Amino acid sequence: MRILITGAAGMLGRKLAARLAADGSLAGRPIEALDLADVVPADPPAGLGADVAVEAVVADLAEPTVAAELASRAPDVVFHLAGVVSGEAEANPAKGYRVNLDGTRHLLDALAAAPGRPRVVFSSSIAVFGAPFPPVIDDDFHLTPLTSYGAQKAMGELLLADHSRRGLIDGVGIRLPTITVRPGRPNAAASGFFSGIIREPLNGEPARLPVPPTVRHPHASPRAAIGFMVHAAGVDTDVLGPRRNLTMPSISVSVAEQIEALGRVAGPDTVALIHEEPDEAVATIVAGWPEAFTATRARQLGFVSETTYDEIIQVYLDDDRSAG
Amino acid sequence: MRILITGAAGMLGRKLAARLAADGSLAGRPIEALDLADVVPADPPAGLGADVAVEAVVADLAEPTVAAELASRAPDVVFHLAGVVSGEAEANPAKGYRVNLDGTRHLLDALAAAPGRPRVVFSSSIAVFGAPFPPVIDDDFHLTPLTSYGAQKAMGELLLADHSRRGLIDGVGIRLPTITVRPGRPNAAASGFFSGIIREPLNGEPARLPVPPTVRHPHASPRAAIGFMVHAAGVDTDVLGPRRNLTMPSISVSVAEQIEALGRVAGPDTVALIHEEPDEAVATIVAGWPEAFTATRARQLGFVSETTYDEIIQVYLDDDRSAG
Repeated sequence: MRILITGAAGMLGRKLAARLAADGSLAGRPIEALDLADVVPADPPAGLGADVAVEAVVADLAEPTVAAELASRAPDVVFHLAGVVSGEAEANPAKGYRVNLDGTRHLLDALAAAPGRPRVVFSSSIAVFGAPFPPVIDDDFHLTPLTSYGAQKAMGELLLADHSRRGLIDGVGIRLPTITVRPGRPNAAASGFFSGIIREPLNGEPARLPVPPTVRHPHASPRAAIGFMVHAAGVDTDVLGPRRNLTMPSISVSVAEQIEALGRVAGPDTVALIHEEPDEAVATIVAGWPEAFTATRARQLGFVSETTYDEIIQVYLDDDRSAG
Repeated sequence: MRILITGAAGMLGRKLAARLAADGSLAGRPIEALDLADVVPADPPAGLGADVAVEAVVADLAEPTVAAELASRAPDVVFHLAGVVSGEAEANPAKGYRVNLDGTRHLLDALAAAPGRPRVVFSSSIAVFGAPFPPVIDDDFHLTPLTSYGAQKAMGELLLADHSRRGLIDGVGIRLPTITVRPGRPNAAASGFFSGIIREPLNGEPARLPVPPTVRHPHASPRAAIGFMVHAAGVDTDVLGPRRNLTMPSISVSVAEQIEALGRVAGPDTVALIHEEPDEAVATIVAGWPEAFTATRARQLGFVSETTYDEIIQVYLDDDRSAG
């Protein structure tokens, strides 16, 4: 089968490509071609079979003809991960709407217009929800995003569902919880500190905590996120019906519980590297985010996340710290 | 104040203009100018004060520069009613997305970019919801539209809320229930029969009923819908916070109850003009529509609808049949 990944040069895109290379197949079918699209050249993953045609395509999906060219390659499965993160979409609304809304619309329209009915896995976000919330959010809760990023993701979800309902694509939207521990340097996401307070101390560096330790939030590891994507590529969409967008499983922990887990894994000297440094702007955005989800439908469909934050820290140590 | 109505040549646009002309003021301020935008020329309402500057503007909002011109007139209040109806948006998806999504986006973007912070009343629809439903839907229920029209309205709601959250416009989205009894000839809306089974018999003509009489649906009269719009123009949006889209009040009646009300108002000979003529396509669309709403927030904010279907029939007889 032929696979297209958009946002392939991003953290999740690279990890997904590496996982696909390691598996050699997806949803029970061998991988024959892999198109890695991004606005910058994406590196092909190591370990890809010599018979797999891999191409890095430098592509800005907000340019209408670009999506048509990618769709003309007739991918069987599309992982649409491209987008600008919440902090950037809030700071630069024109760019956010251009990339996150127009880019998604062009891609979905192009795939709908092309022959075939590809499986499209769309990385949405729990930012589609907005406070006030019940303590635990069920699968029927309304979408009232409090960021432009969340609004753009919600619009993408609506397009994905409508094109799927029409039988033009076979979409599955996966609302990712906050993904921690992100490897590498901090990015512009307002949620960046959730990773930073673990990653920086583990690497012997100080970390700033811009919100109170009582802040509770849903988490999953990058490895779990890639697991969601791969599972979404093979899930039976007849069971989904027209409700194509699913809140993914996660574990709900407070910042204090994250820090306790860090202490158990790495000891008190590591924890001592975290400094509280309140940031009103970040705290305001985060206060509009949910704390916990049932994710009942996704769990019933076989999506799986970690069950303790200790596991999430261990995933970072296994997958990323050793590589860094 | 200056008022802009889009979709001003439509049924609700004309009734709204007539109401504004009769009132002479809106939200406690005298009306000084009224721009009536539509893709066809809109007739100025009768009874408008001689000192009110009224202009019919032939405008296709899906053309980007058109919205900018309308926004440059610096309206204080905008009633955005323009759109293609559900049946047409389903039959012609390209047109539906162009008019209902692009047109709304251009207008909201142009108003956001222009000076000032106009009150924008957006006519959304209960088509943003999709089955399966609880028997009565509360204000926190998620948006899973089962028509392209519903998807487009939901995307418009998200844009309205995001631009309002940013302080660029002051939006209120009003999700209209099915508006009956519509005057005039049938339109392309899949919901058209809800009016037709009352209107045609009252005018001595036969009417087709394409769905079972057990179908239950939320209704309000055109007069109530205009009341929602006028109330939305003056409502305190500080109370709304970021949740700018409100499900309007309605009465939930079955088709059988509609017909019983018709019998009470007009007698059995009138009722005998209704013929059951099942239509699978219409029945499938209608089966994806909700039956009843709490509309708690809207009621608390002072939005009011009829409480019996007899009243709704009487509104038609008072406002439209005499005029026809």
